[in-house]
Amino acid sequence: MASETADKLAAMSLKDVQTVSHGPCNNMPEWKAQLETVKKGLPEHYALTKTLVFKPKTPKSQTAVLIMVVALEDSDTNSSLIAKALDVKEPRFAQADAVEAALGVKPADASPLAITAENAASVQVAFDLRILDAKVPVGVHPSRSDVTVFIRGADIKAHLDKTGVKITVIDFSLAAVYVSNRNHGTGLSDQDCGRQSASKQVTSKPPIKQAPKQTIEGAELVGITLAKEEDFSGWYQQVLTKGDMLDYYDISGCYILKPWSYGIWERVQQYFDSRIKSMGVQNCYFPMFVSAKVLEREKDHIEGFAPEVAWVTKAGQKDLEEHIAIRPTSETVMYPYYAKWIRSHRDLPLRLNQWNSVVRWEFKHPQPFLRTREFLWQEGHTAHIDYPSADKEVMQILDWYEGVYRDVLAVPVRKGKKTENEKFAGGFYTTTCEGYIPATGRGIQGATSHCLGQNFSKMFNITVEDPKWKEGDPEEAKKLHVWQNSWGLSTRVIGVMVMIHSDNKGLVLPPNAAQIQVVIVPCGITAKTTEAQRKALTDAVLDLEKTLSDGGIRVHADLRDTYSPGYKFNDWELKGVPIRLEYGPKDIEKNQVVAVRRDTGVKESVSLQNIAQELQTRLTTMHQDMFNKAKEAYDSHVKLVKTWDEVVPALDAKNVILMAHCKCQGCEDEVKENSKGRVDTEAPEDSRAPSMGAKSLCIPFDQPDGKDKIVPGVTKCVHCGENAKHYTLFGRSY
Amino acid sequence: MASETADKLAAMSLKDVQTVSHGPCNNMPEWKAQLETVKKGLPEHYALTKTLVFKPKTPKSQTAVLIMVVALEDSDTNSSLIAKALDVKEPRFAQADAVEAALGVKPADASPLAITAENAASVQVAFDLRILDAKVPVGVHPSRSDVTVFIRGADIKAHLDKTGVKITVIDFSLAAVYVSNRNHGTGLSDQDCGRQSASKQVTSKPPIKQAPKQTIEGAELVGITLAKEEDFSGWYQQVLTKGDMLDYYDISGCYILKPWSYGIWERVQQYFDSRIKSMGVQNCYFPMFVSAKVLEREKDHIEGFAPEVAWVTKAGQKDLEEHIAIRPTSETVMYPYYAKWIRSHRDLPLRLNQWNSVVRWEFKHPQPFLRTREFLWQEGHTAHIDYPSADKEVMQILDWYEGVYRDVLAVPVRKGKKTENEKFAGGFYTTTCEGYIPATGRGIQGATSHCLGQNFSKMFNITVEDPKWKEGDPEEAKKLHVWQNSWGLSTRVIGVMVMIHSDNKGLVLPPNAAQIQVVIVPCGITAKTTEAQRKALTDAVLDLEKTLSDGGIRVHADLRDTYSPGYKFNDWELKGVPIRLEYGPKDIEKNQVVAVRRDTGVKESVSLQNIAQELQTRLTTMHQDMFNKAKEAYDSHVKLVKTWDEVVPALDAKNVILMAHCKCQGCEDEVKENSKGRVDTEAPEDSRAPSMGAKSLCIPFDQPDGKDKIVPGVTKCVHCGENAKHYTLFGRSY
Repeated sequence: MASETADKLAAMSLKDVQTVSHGPCNNMPEWKAQLETVKKGLPEHYALTKTLVFKPKTPKSQTAVLIMVVALEDSDTNSSLIAKALDVKEPRFAQADAVEAALGVKPADASPLAITAENAASVQVAFDLRILDAKVPVGVHPSRSDVTVFIRGADIKAHLDKTGVKITVIDFSLAAVYVSNRNHGTGLSDQDCGRQSASKQVTSKPPIKQAPKQTIEGAELVGITLAKEEDFSGWYQQVLTKGDMLDYYDISGCYILKPWSYGIWERVQQYFDSRIKSMGVQNCYFPMFVSAKVLEREKDHIEGFAPEVAWVTKAGQKDLEEHIAIRPTSETVMYPYYAKWIRSHRDLPLRLNQWNSVVRWEFKHPQPFLRTREFLWQEGHTAHIDYPSADKEVMQILDWYEGVYRDVLAVPVRKGKKTENEKFAGGFYTTTCEGYIPATGRGIQGATSHCLGQNFSKMFNITVEDPKWKEGDPEEAKKLHVWQNSWGLSTRVIGVMVMIHSDNKGLVLPPNAAQIQVVIVPCGITAKTTEAQRKALTDAVLDLEKTLSDGGIRVHADLRDTYSPGYKFNDWELKGVPIRLEYGPKDIEKNQVVAVRRDTGVKESVSLQNIAQELQTRLTTMHQDMFNKAKEAYDSHVKLVKTWDEVVPALDAKNVILMAHCKCQGCEDEVKENSKGRVDTEAPEDSRAPSMGAKSLCIPFDQPDGKDKIVPGVTKCVHCGENAKHYTLFGRSY
Repeated sequence: MASETADKLAAMSLKDVQTVSHGPCNNMPEWKAQLETVKKGLPEHYALTKTLVFKPKTPKSQTAVLIMVVALEDSDTNSSLIAKALDVKEPRFAQADAVEAALGVKPADASPLAITAENAASVQVAFDLRILDAKVPVGVHPSRSDVTVFIRGADIKAHLDKTGVKITVIDFSLAAVYVSNRNHGTGLSDQDCGRQSASKQVTSKPPIKQAPKQTIEGAELVGITLAKEEDFSGWYQQVLTKGDMLDYYDISGCYILKPWSYGIWERVQQYFDSRIKSMGVQNCYFPMFVSAKVLEREKDHIEGFAPEVAWVTKAGQKDLEEHIAIRPTSETVMYPYYAKWIRSHRDLPLRLNQWNSVVRWEFKHPQPFLRTREFLWQEGHTAHIDYPSADKEVMQILDWYEGVYRDVLAVPVRKGKKTENEKFAGGFYTTTCEGYIPATGRGIQGATSHCLGQNFSKMFNITVEDPKWKEGDPEEAKKLHVWQNSWGLSTRVIGVMVMIHSDNKGLVLPPNAAQIQVVIVPCGITAKTTEAQRKALTDAVLDLEKTLSDGGIRVHADLRDTYSPGYKFNDWELKGVPIRLEYGPKDIEKNQVVAVRRDTGVKESVSLQNIAQELQTRLTTMHQDMFNKAKEAYDSHVKLVKTWDEVVPALDAKNVILMAHCKCQGCEDEVKENSKGRVDTEAPEDSRAPSMGAKSLCIPFDQPDGKDKIVPGVTKCVHCGENAKHYTLFGRSY
């Protein structure tokens, strides 16, 4: 009976494979091998599944549709997540009779293979994404708990798809719902058909509606199952987690920066740290703790942060006498000491910076990199003798922030000044780099450089004797309050980079940001390849790796022998490595290598003559191309509007808008109120943009000129009709 | 009347100056200038003082001795600190009659100048250290509140010293008591006698009892007022704060790392980070927060930290449902994810590191760098397939920790294994670098590299399928728990470096650690020097700076025109810059520069031919010399003892001891108990060494050989007489 089932199943699997096997790759041999294992016993590597049947709370009037959870043995299939994912109430384990009535088997024998076109209507399936990801055969019970057969996870789903049963794929490890019964594909990326699928990449992106289709080809097993154009925030989560950038943490709003993303942060640090040091900024470290009385010293300032401050009230078992805050930012932490340290104008400018983490306990929907309760950043805090010195620095820092985006992340930003409504709490004026996310049409604040004026120095009494003071000048003129700046750039930059460049195959990393710029994948190994040939190829790959490494390229040779080239191609595409080199025996003969660009998929043969030089050039070009493409997307979505009627349609069309504005705060508030349109449901709420109305992003330094130039007294505010002062960039934003 | 007082005072000051003016420097002209200002009005720069008179709670039977607080206007003279410093009860403002009875003036007119030899017994003085530090004339009331005269702060103290009144110098900014009526010197470092005082430095260190005397010469105004040999912990605080390494923070146990010390941390990071990356370690960042349930997962481990864990219980005004801990270390933060990420033996070794801060809320006496509630460190966490791979890494890391001490900080350490009593809570075995502080004769743990064995992997279920498992092997043998290591090095290294190398002139920085290796001080400017000559000197100094900088030396030219060379010499000595170059017109003529080594004070003329090369050689030599000197001090204080009688005397003589030991935990405990001796009052309590008994520092890898070699079964434990297993290094320790 068991072997009978096994054979039935074997037949089914084979049939399935044939029906879905696209392309020229012949994967029969592997399948034969797998079926052998069913007879011989356990395969060399495998994973086991569990099948659980639930019954949701259902009105008496209706017959309950059972829920079959099909998951890997060690997946945490928590029922509240299932309820949420399937939108059902209180799922409980189903009674034996209910299971038998629906599936005709005892609960113990229940298995996905027990579902047929006939009983498909009486049950829906919660399917573990990890089964699709499984790189090894998956064991299931063929409707008999005493028998286990091993097949490819994807084929279990293929079978279910064919029955027409409702399937929801859930990634239990992420506690987030992914695919809702959309992709009925069976991946093939495990097969050695990398060359073919790679060559497919040359074709330009398909239209949106086909995106899911596109993800079928090999992507589903390990790859992105959501289309950027369809479910942006789900796509963003997948790109980050499957691209190995980040993992979710068991405390909400906190995330783990894995080496793949932290390495990008290290590059950002190198770029910025060396520059600020060249102008005399020194690094230091202040405590993460701040006492309540010091924190609250500057009222406007603390108002901005108070609701988000995390408080330490206990140590061990002891309650602390005074509650201690964790810094949301360090102005009030540092400035009492500036008052102590700055004794004379000769101590100016004082320029300190720290690379640290700060905590802002937001209660809004968190977003990896964009809104997190703890985040890494640098905060610079400087003191100057006068305004010109402070102002000069504010602008220099802003230029370097733009440089981080342009030179490291290939991201274009627009520089400008924040309006009074949007400037830093307690500051004098705020300058900003504003980015743009084409997929959502929203603006995003990239980094800010603030001039605090003398506000904090008055609050904290940071003064020097004015060196210009002379005998006879009024006594009070002698005391000079210093001018201060503060400026910060956070790991948010990584999120912006990902949102802009990545695609439905995964991450796309700009060459300057990538830790691995070039990956070498040995190809062309077949059953007929001899040991000697394999060794020759490995040696050649290692030589090439050394050549490139000596040439200053961050290179990695992927010599994992357990994975096929096709699998490796997908793997490195998912991780966004800029250039993939495919290197096989034929290439060695021709003294060439095949290079594939991650951003375009374009593929070309490159001679091994000056290969390092050749690839350096391509990396430089690729970085520039990525920047240009993003810049074009930005520029083409900055809509200069002349009348109010154009505003909401422009916003709805994913533009940010440039409009002549009167500079009145009241008018700015009304713009936000009156520009609410079709709310983009993809977008998370943003505590700093309570509505999807357009807020002012900045007053760009680069103002329209020529016929669009503001004519004082003539050009009117597009919203209120008063005299316009300048163009302001408005947009829905993060 | 005012001018009369002024003249009286002028006379006094002049007299004082003459009586204390040592050496050939003539400082009359400057004094004349200052007295001029008294007649003309305010000097260009000055500070004002306040005089407060308190009366302590005194038994009826006794007559109260009043307390006169003499402090800079803006010093925070809090009375509880005063009570503590002077060991008096409840000081309150004294009634007018009490003040007049004691000093013969109204409270408003009270001033240090009102104290005379006659009334000195009826009052004691709490004197603000900042007055001694003041670089500008200090204004006081000459027993008349409507008149202010300006004199040098040191001269106020000199005057008080002469009256015989009891004086306690207090550093209000540090909230710590310094000098107890010990140094009666008046500093002269503001005078241009740098050459002379510098030449004095060539003479070897004076014996201990002369240390205070030694500090007279110029040190007191800005320098160290305590001798390392006399008040070690007071000296340590002064060296750190006055050497610009660190400042105290308003939350106890937290300190500010100023650029001068943070820069050293950056060098340590460069050294270690490049090495671990070379072996495939990757940096990452995990959240600082950890939930209670995860934190408490490994019992032995958490037991070690529970009393020191800081808890976040509130955000804004909201109480958090679950209390959240701030990591004291990250084992339990990271390992649940290791369990998730490590799916196959191919994922091993997994090697992650983070540079972060951790919090251990100790309630014991804090010590800058050595015991702080938040500290910076790196923590490496790795997972391996087997013991040999884990063990190899543990030792490699330990070697690099030794390298940090030797190559960056010129500090010798002894490598070894911790005993069972002292190993890491929850670990398998712990290796350590143990340092030695000659001034206190105590050992100090430098850094530890732990093998955790499989303990945590069993707790967190971090397993892979054993690649060696074969068909037919027992099923349970298939599951392999990974082997783990964790290793950490903290900013404590900076404290160890300071304690070992610094002296009574301040910091002494090893060339490899110093941010500024060479400072150039222009000299030889006199009243007769022309503008042209000044400019020529400045240009020459800048040329020299460029030459050295191009030669790869971290150099700084001190061109501050408001300070004399003598002042600069003291300033850079205080900050510990390895080599000072004195460069004047005569040197230019001779195409030479005078180089002074900070560690020895040795001074020599060096030709400008290949000056960069020449100095590089000297910096290398100096680093090696500092290391050798510290090593000799360590080696000569490791006492190999044969009998128990020698132990306590050896410890009291500031040795650590090497003794044959039976390895029994009970015996080790008794050693600690029985080795308590004359308690070193200088030393702070240490939560991990509750008594000053000797605890085991390590079982050195380098065991005595030859005649001292352990003969199994023959050599006996020095303490209990059982068979000795090996030599263990015991010592009183931090």
